[in-house]
Amino acid sequence: MPSYKAPLRDMRFIMHELLGAQDVLGAMPYYAENETHDASLLDQILDEAARFTENELQPLNQSGDQEGCTRHEDGSVTTPKGFKEAYKKYREAGWTALSADPQYGGQGLPHLVGNALVEMMNSANVAWSMYPGLSHGAYSALAAVGSDDLKATYLPKLVNGEWTGTMCLTEPHAGTDLGIIRTRARDNGDGTYAITGTKIFISAGEHDMADNILHLVLARLEGSPEGTKGISLFLVPKYLVNADGTLGERNTVVCGSIEHKMGIHGNATAVLNFDDAKGYLVGELNKGMNHMFIMMNAARLGTGLQGLGIGEVAYQNAVAYAKDRLQMRAPQRVRPDEAADPIIVHPDVRRMLLTAKAYTEAGRALAMWLALSLDVEHHHPDDAKRKEAGDLVALLTPIAKAFMTDNGFQSAVLAQQVFGGHGYIQEWGMEQFVRDARIGQIYEGTNGIQALDLIGRKVLMDGGRKLQKLAGMLETFLEENEGNEDLAPYLDTLSRAAQQVGTLTMVVGQKAMQNPDEANAVAVDYLRYVGHVTYAYLWARMAKIALDKQGDDKTGFYAAKLATAKFYFEKLFPETKALSATIKAGNDALAVDEAIFNF
Amino acid sequence: MPSYKAPLRDMRFIMHELLGAQDVLGAMPYYAENETHDASLLDQILDEAARFTENELQPLNQSGDQEGCTRHEDGSVTTPKGFKEAYKKYREAGWTALSADPQYGGQGLPHLVGNALVEMMNSANVAWSMYPGLSHGAYSALAAVGSDDLKATYLPKLVNGEWTGTMCLTEPHAGTDLGIIRTRARDNGDGTYAITGTKIFISAGEHDMADNILHLVLARLEGSPEGTKGISLFLVPKYLVNADGTLGERNTVVCGSIEHKMGIHGNATAVLNFDDAKGYLVGELNKGMNHMFIMMNAARLGTGLQGLGIGEVAYQNAVAYAKDRLQMRAPQRVRPDEAADPIIVHPDVRRMLLTAKAYTEAGRALAMWLALSLDVEHHHPDDAKRKEAGDLVALLTPIAKAFMTDNGFQSAVLAQQVFGGHGYIQEWGMEQFVRDARIGQIYEGTNGIQALDLIGRKVLMDGGRKLQKLAGMLETFLEENEGNEDLAPYLDTLSRAAQQVGTLTMVVGQKAMQNPDEANAVAVDYLRYVGHVTYAYLWARMAKIALDKQGDDKTGFYAAKLATAKFYFEKLFPETKALSATIKAGNDALAVDEAIFNF
Repeated sequence: MPSYKAPLRDMRFIMHELLGAQDVLGAMPYYAENETHDASLLDQILDEAARFTENELQPLNQSGDQEGCTRHEDGSVTTPKGFKEAYKKYREAGWTALSADPQYGGQGLPHLVGNALVEMMNSANVAWSMYPGLSHGAYSALAAVGSDDLKATYLPKLVNGEWTGTMCLTEPHAGTDLGIIRTRARDNGDGTYAITGTKIFISAGEHDMADNILHLVLARLEGSPEGTKGISLFLVPKYLVNADGTLGERNTVVCGSIEHKMGIHGNATAVLNFDDAKGYLVGELNKGMNHMFIMMNAARLGTGLQGLGIGEVAYQNAVAYAKDRLQMRAPQRVRPDEAADPIIVHPDVRRMLLTAKAYTEAGRALAMWLALSLDVEHHHPDDAKRKEAGDLVALLTPIAKAFMTDNGFQSAVLAQQVFGGHGYIQEWGMEQFVRDARIGQIYEGTNGIQALDLIGRKVLMDGGRKLQKLAGMLETFLEENEGNEDLAPYLDTLSRAAQQVGTLTMVVGQKAMQNPDEANAVAVDYLRYVGHVTYAYLWARMAKIALDKQGDDKTGFYAAKLATAKFYFEKLFPETKALSATIKAGNDALAVDEAIFNF
Repeated sequence: MPSYKAPLRDMRFIMHELLGAQDVLGAMPYYAENETHDASLLDQILDEAARFTENELQPLNQSGDQEGCTRHEDGSVTTPKGFKEAYKKYREAGWTALSADPQYGGQGLPHLVGNALVEMMNSANVAWSMYPGLSHGAYSALAAVGSDDLKATYLPKLVNGEWTGTMCLTEPHAGTDLGIIRTRARDNGDGTYAITGTKIFISAGEHDMADNILHLVLARLEGSPEGTKGISLFLVPKYLVNADGTLGERNTVVCGSIEHKMGIHGNATAVLNFDDAKGYLVGELNKGMNHMFIMMNAARLGTGLQGLGIGEVAYQNAVAYAKDRLQMRAPQRVRPDEAADPIIVHPDVRRMLLTAKAYTEAGRALAMWLALSLDVEHHHPDDAKRKEAGDLVALLTPIAKAFMTDNGFQSAVLAQQVFGGHGYIQEWGMEQFVRDARIGQIYEGTNGIQALDLIGRKVLMDGGRKLQKLAGMLETFLEENEGNEDLAPYLDTLSRAAQQVGTLTMVVGQKAMQNPDEANAVAVDYLRYVGHVTYAYLWARMAKIALDKQGDDKTGFYAAKLATAKFYFEKLFPETKALSATIKAGNDALAVDEAIFNF
């Protein structure tokens, strides 16, 4: 049975030593006034989050997978044994309110620390974590564009976790293409709307963990324009709420079935049938797609954290197994008294472990950087700083979602491989990590869609402005460290890669002006390229800190950081050589007659 | 629910147009005398194999996965509904005897056609196919080194499928490292042995499809040397066989449990407890490891065919979905009357489909080339030809096992990705392909072990002799086609890659003389490199044929072949650029203090 220990040392390294979180947060009155920027407070919360996730969530992960969810004839859903009780504890400990705004009962702590909590939750139990996870998206949308009435009625209970939220976008015929949804809204003339239609793949769409579920639903008001410009966002509660805040009658939205899936069995993926269900408009009419993206961006970083969390826990268990499992001999025997040496001596086993380790630690740095940028975007008093942070968030979000879930899946597969045959057996828990990690590449916009978002909306349509800001940070770092001999090999690599990103972007951009398919054709490879450059930048920065501090270090932490940086640059970053070639090859090999697929 | 049509056109292309099978086989009296080399006979068998696998096996694939196997208290195992009946039909149609030697009741047909059958079986139902599949290994070992008595008693019923076989190697503490197994044999003094021990992960180890199961078991005779040099191979039948060939008493080998696995649920993976079970020595005492490799090499190609078969069926279903699913618009609308265009118009979807297609078709060419080489190795009258073919088989077997299962898994994952969220739902069948494909990378020697076999035993310990023969074939092809302008870009790539393989091999070889870890550290990347060079050679040869024939072709087959070759060279082969860098980087980044894994 797998185990999990939260990587607190690495989280603190990134938070304090890499990002200087206390200073960044301290510059914002929102945090400084409540002293929620304080490093020792943040550390204390991490400790508590570690205890909760290790002791309460992780023990339910494997049993939750094996038991799954059960839907009853009346449409109600029972979650796996222990899920409900764990949610009660989670709620009572105040975790649901962590990063929420104090005006709705939140604790007003930085996203940065919420991000660390969510990583731990995903390592411990990704299926469970999706129940409160989906509430974040609903909270963000309501808080950003909901009317005062809606906020007053729904936000406090979403924040204190009495109620949970969902995102209802997909329909049987419409996933990526939300412009063609068929769910419709009729104006009841009393400020409410009647919503009718079928939504599928609704994570946490029905369950027994909270008293009410707030569905945020995309639908088209009768008479609105076709396509994405006629879509609005509605709040449809499972139970209607009386004027005094108590629960009223059951709304006409029911769970028609739950899906049998490859993984995340502990989470109920519901088909929801809305039959003239009473709903409330969220934000402006026909601006539903814009409002939806508020939820979606939160969900995308959250999905990236699933890849990260699973990569971390899979790595930890693979290391433990590799130290324990005796098989074959090293050139110099390590355990001469035993029949064989532990497999961690074999270079190919180390290759697999280090791949997971290097991707995970860079991913953690990216996610925390992004989370801290979200804090700046939302709360910095300086407009320019907020704008700058917002641009970075926009650029890095598709990378965090796609690169982190792709690498998380790859890490889980490699960690499973370390176990040999045992990795394929359910009992050992490694195959669950692979199954659970797989969904991250698919939902909340497939990774192909993330790649289109990056190259299209975030880079080319933006004239490369956001990308140049990132390049500017790299250049500043390179200039600051010119002449640092220990860092030199990494700086060289980084410098060439940054130049190459510029060249590739120009090449693709020019071709795409003639034919938009040229961007589509290389989008996935381009995202991996920019992802690697981002990781290389973060690894170079982490290596610099480790070089400065390793002299006094007796724990070996900085030596490990340097070894992992070296592995990243020598063994993982070279993927960019292949990507550069396939990006340059463009759309030619893809612009084929559809008839070739007849064979 | 997924569907499957055997890729007969491509199989015929490879068999006849690429490999010239009739001529190669016709040069061997073993085939020519019985006319089992005849092209129309081979084609007819392919047609029948297609019908059987499409109609009898494929419909049981999804139900078999969902139902799984059941072990009863007495140790017996019930296979999923329909499995037993399908096996009866398979047996009655003579499929078990296809490539077996006529002296044991076999049909004496080439491995080439047996290979095509096995690919189809794996596309249709990999879990089912493992029941007869394991019999091949047992057959090979018994036929090669069994005593006349053992052959007479056991082979005819293994060949006619009344009985099936297993390979019993792994123990709880010993997988890769068979030198440390604990199962022991005691000489009963009457020509039989008493076998005691526990074997795990025994595929098809217990079931209800055949009357008897022949376990081929590695064990150490009391008093034999330690390590691999003291291991012998024993035949331990589930039921003892009377002198008249009828079944006698139940032997003391029982199935203690069956594993709950990530996939291949329809196949029973047994823990077998041997308790003084009666066994018969197969081959020579203490030569068990050598004899085991006879089985293992058959199993390795068979495992490669699992990757191939799953890649093919996953591709077919992804193409069908991509043509059917309407979502978003192409720059030029394809279905102006519908709300959206089929997703096959999107370049990124084509990238995923073409990746699976290019890997699958090259894999098929490799597998069939290998199978035909096996025929030559076993039956050619000329010693030198047999030796040459044997060398090629030895070199290509680890590539076929590892490269084909890695690419098969990747193809299944990409094909699943084409389905978006539906790919994650069991009902659609795509996630089963991913789960079923995953085991191929793990068992019959993990792909890491295959890579060590290639770089160590097959290349470096051999002084590069076998590899040079392969390089010689490439050079001949390059010389023959010098000046062919249409082929020129592929020939350039191939020529540079062939040179680079030589350079990389020398670099690694020199470092490995100082430190064997240097080979271990790059083995997996090296295998992928050599795999790509092999695929590039096969794609260039296939492209040449297609160029010659496309003019008269109205079906579009050769145009599809050329488009896929182009995609392979432009989009997949560039992986070698990254591999070249990581191979050159060697063991440096892996030769780290174990303490770094404490973080």
